[in-house]
Amino acid sequence: MLPNAIVWNARTGVLELLDQRALPGVERCVVCRDAEEAAQAIENMTVRGAPAIGIAAAYGVALAAPRGREAVVAAMERLARTRPTAVNLFGALSRMRSRLESAPNEALQESLLDEARRIHDGDVEANRRLGRHGAALLPQKAAVLTHCNAGAIATGGHGTALGILRSAREAGKTIQVYADETRPRLQGARLTAWELARDGFDVTLICDGMAAALMKGRKIDAVIVGADRIAANGDTANKTGTYMLAIAAAAHGVPFYAAAPRSTLDPSLPSGAEIPIEVRSDQEVRRLFDGQSVPEAVKIWNPAFDVTPAELITAIITEDGVFRAPYRFV
Amino acid sequence: MLPNAIVWNARTGVLELLDQRALPGVERCVVCRDAEEAAQAIENMTVRGAPAIGIAAAYGVALAAPRGREAVVAAMERLARTRPTAVNLFGALSRMRSRLESAPNEALQESLLDEARRIHDGDVEANRRLGRHGAALLPQKAAVLTHCNAGAIATGGHGTALGILRSAREAGKTIQVYADETRPRLQGARLTAWELARDGFDVTLICDGMAAALMKGRKIDAVIVGADRIAANGDTANKTGTYMLAIAAAAHGVPFYAAAPRSTLDPSLPSGAEIPIEVRSDQEVRRLFDGQSVPEAVKIWNPAFDVTPAELITAIITEDGVFRAPYRFV
Repeated sequence: MLPNAIVWNARTGVLELLDQRALPGVERCVVCRDAEEAAQAIENMTVRGAPAIGIAAAYGVALAAPRGREAVVAAMERLARTRPTAVNLFGALSRMRSRLESAPNEALQESLLDEARRIHDGDVEANRRLGRHGAALLPQKAAVLTHCNAGAIATGGHGTALGILRSAREAGKTIQVYADETRPRLQGARLTAWELARDGFDVTLICDGMAAALMKGRKIDAVIVGADRIAANGDTANKTGTYMLAIAAAAHGVPFYAAAPRSTLDPSLPSGAEIPIEVRSDQEVRRLFDGQSVPEAVKIWNPAFDVTPAELITAIITEDGVFRAPYRFV
Repeated sequence: MLPNAIVWNARTGVLELLDQRALPGVERCVVCRDAEEAAQAIENMTVRGAPAIGIAAAYGVALAAPRGREAVVAAMERLARTRPTAVNLFGALSRMRSRLESAPNEALQESLLDEARRIHDGDVEANRRLGRHGAALLPQKAAVLTHCNAGAIATGGHGTALGILRSAREAGKTIQVYADETRPRLQGARLTAWELARDGFDVTLICDGMAAALMKGRKIDAVIVGADRIAANGDTANKTGTYMLAIAAAAHGVPFYAAAPRSTLDPSLPSGAEIPIEVRSDQEVRRLFDGQSVPEAVKIWNPAFDVTPAELITAIITEDGVFRAPYRFV
């Protein structure tokens, strides 16, 4: 059994987040007692994954309710400043803002909590539908390569890219998984390999730069990744390294799928050029556990995401079905 | 000043190798007193880089001379079993074998040492000529991306890919360098960034998976890498990740150059399919400094090299000039 990544503890009225920084070595949770703690947990990647960020932010808004409406508005502003790329964050905050407007003062937290739970439950439901749509694209016996972690712990549960693998297995298919380790934060190694192995999948880890040789040397039926924001034309922001992987997939004729709930779509942006890309600290690249790979004097470029152009994406899989180019999301 | 990676200490009669496993944190040398110690230093990557492996092996053969001809033959056999991919190793051992045949018993070590020094000096000379040929390909102000470490410490001195950058600077060109960190052993971070920063270059480190986004977002004039073995048709084995980088370069119209002395050519192999690719320990991927990225239960695929097909290589640069497709090395 996988631990739940996001739990609202109704007894104590706090948000409990699986500390994804400590995996796979340690399973512990971080308790968020107010919106600021939730915001910090999003910033420092205690919780990560576009859908999970949105859900955690929604509960974070609810945490502010006991201090009144103004505190809730301030919490929403604080949470909006945590991470710029995943649009699910802004979508969730927008829903919380609408709910705030209609919520009676005497039931402010109940009302906001209800909306957060709907966002959470809705994500799991979307993943299950998405999973079935995606599973239908895979052969009976499939070898799939994935990048980063678009699994149960990146979402409300089940997962997007990894949810497809789970749904395929539920449908009786045999799935062999290859996981990119996903530098710099090693989500593929620390989270995906851990999540899938724990869930009984046959999983093999590779370094990110080995993906092309893997596709050349072994039969890979599909590359499936998650997404952090998808523009109206299908251009897709996802974890750094995804664009290079998509190029390699195209070069080997391997179908490349992006899996995401509709909450990851941003039809307000005509193309990926408009997606804000978060650049994170040098230290994420420079330091590995207790070690340091390069002296402080060496410069580092560390964009957390890149944009895969729509023409490299065989299909985008959402809860509403399988979409193919030309993409025109509205 | 860079430390020399390979030094024959004539006073003590031992081989001193810069311990490249400890860089950049610690600069120390490993002393090899016999051929077995040299073989282990090659296996455990105290010394690495195709030309440097050949040179170290040549000195390793000379270390066996005081024990007589049979010991020298045994040393050559032992050294040949260290690492399978870099052909420079076998070329150097072949030269040592020829020299052994003509060497008088009373001057066995002097004779073998003389050959090892010729291999060493010849490599530096080849790199300098290669460097000038390659430098001529770069614009006056060039941004260059490289992978792994094909520098002074991977060779007898000066370097192949990085030797071109040194020669370009000597020719008055302004060179900005981007270095892939090069998982799993981080030679780009630990060795290339260190070597270039120490040598006064403007160097920026990226994760391997960021190379495509870099080429899309910034003007990169060339990708230049070294090589471990080049087949007759130009197919080139180099550090794992090179093939994926070459695909990304082609997708962005960035010239992709392989730089290697002729000792890296293996005309006996018609194509890259015949190049033996070393698969190294899981632990190189699993462990990072004192940390562990995935549980022992997760499988890992860790090929140390991959093969870039000739059609993705804009030119192969050797001491004899710049070669372009169709490659027909003899």
